[in-house]
Amino acid sequence: MSKTVLILPGDGIGPEVMAQVRRLLDRIGGFNIEEGLVGGASYDAHGTPLTDDTMAAALKADAVLLGAVGGPKWESLPFADKPERGLLRLRKDMELFANLRPALVFDALAQASTLKTDLVRGLDLMIVRELTGGVYFGEPRGIEDLPNGERRGINTQVYTTSEIVRVARVAFDLARKRDGRVCSVEKANVMESGLLWREEVQTLRDAEYTDVQLSHMYADNCAMQLVRQPKQFDVIVTDNLFGDLLSDCAAMLTGSLGMLPSASLGAADASGARKALYEPVHGSAPDIAGQDKANPMACILSASMMLRYSFDMAAEADLIDAACQDVLNAGIRTGDIVEAGMTPVGTVAMGDAVLAAMDKRAGG
Amino acid sequence: MSKTVLILPGDGIGPEVMAQVRRLLDRIGGFNIEEGLVGGASYDAHGTPLTDDTMAAALKADAVLLGAVGGPKWESLPFADKPERGLLRLRKDMELFANLRPALVFDALAQASTLKTDLVRGLDLMIVRELTGGVYFGEPRGIEDLPNGERRGINTQVYTTSEIVRVARVAFDLARKRDGRVCSVEKANVMESGLLWREEVQTLRDAEYTDVQLSHMYADNCAMQLVRQPKQFDVIVTDNLFGDLLSDCAAMLTGSLGMLPSASLGAADASGARKALYEPVHGSAPDIAGQDKANPMACILSASMMLRYSFDMAAEADLIDAACQDVLNAGIRTGDIVEAGMTPVGTVAMGDAVLAAMDKRAGG
Ligand SMILES: [Mg+2]
Ligand SMILES: [Mg+2]
Repeated sequence: MSKTVLILPGDGIGPEVMAQVRRLLDRIGGFNIEEGLVGGASYDAHGTPLTDDTMAAALKADAVLLGAVGGPKWESLPFADKPERGLLRLRKDMELFANLRPALVFDALAQASTLKTDLVRGLDLMIVRELTGGVYFGEPRGIEDLPNGERRGINTQVYTTSEIVRVARVAFDLARKRDGRVCSVEKANVMESGLLWREEVQTLRDAEYTDVQLSHMYADNCAMQLVRQPKQFDVIVTDNLFGDLLSDCAAMLTGSLGMLPSASLGAADASGARKALYEPVHGSAPDIAGQDKANPMACILSASMMLRYSFDMAAEADLIDAACQDVLNAGIRTGDIVEAGMTPVGTVAMGDAVLAAMDKRAGG
Repeated sequence: MSKTVLILPGDGIGPEVMAQVRRLLDRIGGFNIEEGLVGGASYDAHGTPLTDDTMAAALKADAVLLGAVGGPKWESLPFADKPERGLLRLRKDMELFANLRPALVFDALAQASTLKTDLVRGLDLMIVRELTGGVYFGEPRGIEDLPNGERRGINTQVYTTSEIVRVARVAFDLARKRDGRVCSVEKANVMESGLLWREEVQTLRDAEYTDVQLSHMYADNCAMQLVRQPKQFDVIVTDNLFGDLLSDCAAMLTGSLGMLPSASLGAADASGARKALYEPVHGSAPDIAGQDKANPMACILSASMMLRYSFDMAAEADLIDAACQDVLNAGIRTGDIVEAGMTPVGTVAMGDAVLAAMDKRAGG
């Protein structure tokens, strides 16, 4: 199996957190690693946030690992040159329709949540958000002038059977590797697009995934239930807009945004392989860039997701996840997750600690 | 000033919680109170969840106070006869476009929240949700068959200038009576309807409400901020869909759903008076109906909102709110909010306690 990984460190803290990931992938070995530029870094070198060559390399790679893009240096650029456009082009040209947003709480960090500790300790839920359809992309859209001097703003929420089925399939496949439960979220009571969503997800489950337990929930109730008892969920699958709000709500529940990875997946080819982009949820944090202060764990955990979902290397992914847990349990923390009585360590020391913990577990 | 109040107790626990409100309004005095049927109770008596006579009375009244509708007895009725249709007709024919959903935490109940107590103690935020427009009502809508055998589900998110301005005005007026801050919430970064929303709210503020502080926030960030630090907000104004999710999320943050009131307001007439419907957020709770177990406080607090917003009786509303606080502080609780070491009291005893606390404060 070919394992070509395109690494795009990007801007701000991207390069320094990715350097720790690079060490880790080198240690595991067997990858064909390429590097490229994206975002402001690409604009500075080539006058565009993503070159056609890099885009072609991304389409050819088995997985793309991205750090972060953006920063004040490029904020005044015209719309098409902004760093974020590089990331959006990657998502669009790779047709990444399924956004996987885990909400994970490491035991050692459970008290960082604004929720009471017992409610989040051990939390491990996965939100699968549809990423290329729905009201953020539907036509017609725009703002029009009315004859009476008012204006009217319009967007269109639209989903087809195949758009729903392909993302639901990702959720069911994930559930099979987890606790076997999917909760599908929409507003079928007031939106026909939600009713179609519910029916198509149920039909797919009944036809192909009878081993997976499927429930349905209205999006407003889901927002309540995430706050009331987040551990009730295994996999949540929902549309682009509801997924936008619910995945951010769930991420905040963990209390450790700087720890969260994500994946965006495209369609499976004949061999079952999917286009895939992995990236930490956090941004480029230009205020601390280049100071050896950034927490590399979200990027390391994104690499772990890559091993698990793109390369079927569950054992190695488990090893990385466990090593991160060991490091946190040992009280080794970067500034963003440090607690009273602990001395914060730097980005490189955190990478050292994860590698050492992997070695210890592998050798022990 | 005329003070005609139409009381619609409805179904389940509605009549018994409303009986306590009735005692309280009688004590304050000066109201012309009418009673009517809504929901299953109306269906049983008249074969419809809302008669034309009751609808006419609601349109003539200065305020409508509603208990709750629905229950298993009426679940198998055809769509148009269901209890909920009575409530929906009231909202529609009264043109109630602004839904006020306070998220209030009483000191004595702060530990009931799933959030850490310090983060919610003293919480008092108000979400103003647009209630008659947006994607739940926009046309075109529906599910269509495509030539390729797939189906397509469509809904339309649409807002006009006047729809935005009238609900924003409600939010600004409320802010003036509170902490003077409004946060307007949309997704202007990806939705033109959200961009129009943002522009029209800002234009109104600059033209007429320069004394109110206005900020803008994306809806996904708002979902995060409600969980991270809910006390940062005073008034939030947002559209129908975002308001649906965010108001339920905020309600759950309080940990005491059975305590929360709501108001739905229509347009102001020449004298400044608005059509208005007040109701608790909780449902009809048929499982405990008729057993003197229901908590009347959400309905009592809905009556307090009525005094404040429909009748400009701030002193009396403050008195009710303070009396409720006294009762909770004294450890007098119905079963839904009772804590270890307390003996739960019934619905009537809770009404007794609130009236006694009002008398004590008024006479003290
Ligand atoms: Mg988001
Ligand atoms: Mg709701």
